[in-house]
Amino acid sequence: MSDTTVYRASTTAPVNIAVIKYWGKRDTSLNLPTNSSLSVTLSQKSLKTHTTASCSSSYTGQDSLLLNGEPEDIQSSKRTQACLQLLRRFRKDVEAKDSSLPKLADMPLKLVSANNFPTAAGLASSAAGFAALVRSIANLYDLPHSPTQLSLIARQGSGSACRSLMGGYVAWRAGSSKDGQDSIAEEVAPVSHWPDMRALILVVSADKKGVPSTAGMQTTVETSTLFNVRAEEIVPKRMAMMEEAIQAKDFPKFAETTMKDSNSFHACCLDSWPPIHYLNDVSRAAMNAVETINRRAGELVAAYTFDAGPNAVIYYEEKNEKLVAGVFRYVLQSVKGWDGEYGGQVPLNDRGALESKTVMTLKGGVSRIICTGVGGGPEQIDEHLVDERGQPVRV
Amino acid sequence: MSDTTVYRASTTAPVNIAVIKYWGKRDTSLNLPTNSSLSVTLSQKSLKTHTTASCSSSYTGQDSLLLNGEPEDIQSSKRTQACLQLLRRFRKDVEAKDSSLPKLADMPLKLVSANNFPTAAGLASSAAGFAALVRSIANLYDLPHSPTQLSLIARQGSGSACRSLMGGYVAWRAGSSKDGQDSIAEEVAPVSHWPDMRALILVVSADKKGVPSTAGMQTTVETSTLFNVRAEEIVPKRMAMMEEAIQAKDFPKFAETTMKDSNSFHACCLDSWPPIHYLNDVSRAAMNAVETINRRAGELVAAYTFDAGPNAVIYYEEKNEKLVAGVFRYVLQSVKGWDGEYGGQVPLNDRGALESKTVMTLKGGVSRIICTGVGGGPEQIDEHLVDERGQPVRV
Repeated sequence: MSDTTVYRASTTAPVNIAVIKYWGKRDTSLNLPTNSSLSVTLSQKSLKTHTTASCSSSYTGQDSLLLNGEPEDIQSSKRTQACLQLLRRFRKDVEAKDSSLPKLADMPLKLVSANNFPTAAGLASSAAGFAALVRSIANLYDLPHSPTQLSLIARQGSGSACRSLMGGYVAWRAGSSKDGQDSIAEEVAPVSHWPDMRALILVVSADKKGVPSTAGMQTTVETSTLFNVRAEEIVPKRMAMMEEAIQAKDFPKFAETTMKDSNSFHACCLDSWPPIHYLNDVSRAAMNAVETINRRAGELVAAYTFDAGPNAVIYYEEKNEKLVAGVFRYVLQSVKGWDGEYGGQVPLNDRGALESKTVMTLKGGVSRIICTGVGGGPEQIDEHLVDERGQPVRV
Repeated sequence: MSDTTVYRASTTAPVNIAVIKYWGKRDTSLNLPTNSSLSVTLSQKSLKTHTTASCSSSYTGQDSLLLNGEPEDIQSSKRTQACLQLLRRFRKDVEAKDSSLPKLADMPLKLVSANNFPTAAGLASSAAGFAALVRSIANLYDLPHSPTQLSLIARQGSGSACRSLMGGYVAWRAGSSKDGQDSIAEEVAPVSHWPDMRALILVVSADKKGVPSTAGMQTTVETSTLFNVRAEEIVPKRMAMMEEAIQAKDFPKFAETTMKDSNSFHACCLDSWPPIHYLNDVSRAAMNAVETINRRAGELVAAYTFDAGPNAVIYYEEKNEKLVAGVFRYVLQSVKGWDGEYGGQVPLNDRGALESKTVMTLKGGVSRIICTGVGGGPEQIDEHLVDERGQPVRV
């Protein structure tokens, strides 16, 4: 009788927010970047993707993915196909060495995935999504590969996903080889090295969907006259500075480098043709608030950064919670989200001295806050989104 | 009996709006720029400064300037003093060659100046102001110097003022000598070469006064990591392209270069530390409207550019009046200013297909429009702002 077992493995994977930005590919099919980048992995308590990978000889048809209850077309997604092919190849190698192992690589995959945050928040979920996909299949296949080795695969799904395979402070080395074998993610420091890093996310209602990052970054590579200097000269220096700042837990240096790199990235977007705008007046009000908070503190206690959208992510150390998050909580008391992870403990601070225009713009434009912090990498869990008979579990 | 004549000369001088931006000084006391720039002189029908220079041995006390009815402290203005000293030195040279001439250089100067547009509009009035000051005194002193020679003086008052001494299309050559003798303005083409260039100015109510350009540009020079490439590599190429575009009256080339250079300048502002923001959501709505207009036209028929503030200046050729200004007039019908120079003839165009968000943002943020075009240089006039007895004329 043939083996009709439903094999399952589940994982959660985190979101990461870069402090040195990834923007630009030197190879679009392999997702090889023009420059290295560095991110902080965020706590999964607030933001995570939960994915179950399953396979069985009883499954019929092609590989499938159910994402937040909706079937995704993974057959025509080159990026997903690249990940699945590489993972199957690794499994074949494992099976070739031990003939007693079940032939999982030959079975159709059934993947079920869910985020614990609304997609509408405009938070880059593809990084957590591809990290969870790769990690869950690697678990299912019992692959011996390290997170860094798996990062080569996740990178081909979504560039920044390679940084979500580890917790803490993670660098993605651009590498220089044509095949991308040296374009990998590695841990710069674990969560335990600098655990009191917090991140306050101001979710800003965008007027409309901006230019998707995949298209936007190639527009920048092809047209910005300022971009080469950024990729070739500025970012390498900033990567070194950022790694020093993290090793020394030097927040002012971390903050200045983070803010300058975000500004440099958005400057290159504006210098693209046609120009790309991700920051709006609400984003600029958040920058202005951070500048005011830092000026009043007499040192850099807060750092803003913006990805390919208007949402602000504001890093600070827990000891400065009142000085930083407290000012935003006072201004944005009525905005939802303060009951989450670290939000509830933030004391109101009415001494922010923000300009009234800044306060008005933030109140009018921030639709939700998420108060989180640095967190760990993917975690294997026993809660499966596919039952023993191979049916998706309703979540 | 001594000569107590009140000597008088009056001039008007235009505003200019750069299409290749001046941003950054290599010498702050001489106002020597890091890069060349190029501007379109705007018609004085809409925007001009009218200045009367007078001198008399009957005047007592120091040189004085009455600007829009208010006394200005020109004694502590190094820039104004530099201009007055140079003009007096030139007059002394003239007097030395002909002893029959009155000794005007020894008399106190009484200057009276008025703009035909509200200062509150946030339109750079210092260029027209210093051009009028220099031109009126040069007329008073009967100096034989050409506009290009006088541009050396006006430059020391306000950098961009040197470009307001000529009409049409004017280049300010950065020069390379330490004393700035080769940092001069010269005509690239007169108005008559390309007279149908129009400029629609959208005056945007700024939330607050932004970073003054003199301080802002030095912040950029000192801190932007992208600025050197702009000043040293990008702008020289664009200057050449712009001059070709103007010679050939190639509007699409003129437009693309204008827009890219404006974006590059604002990108360097954002890359400064602390970052400088001049564009706001209304500015970006104007950019978006221009992009939509160009897309619908199937070619570049409109070009936006922004100085150190949120106001949009939109260049177009008269033949495309309906396609460009017509769309803005339709959207901004209730905004004041359409009864001016070229505004009254602009037909309403309801076929702009602007996004509703863009329309809403423009309606909410544009407080006034000025519909003008390319124009001539300073004009000597007989209408004096100082009467024969040396008293300021009420205007």
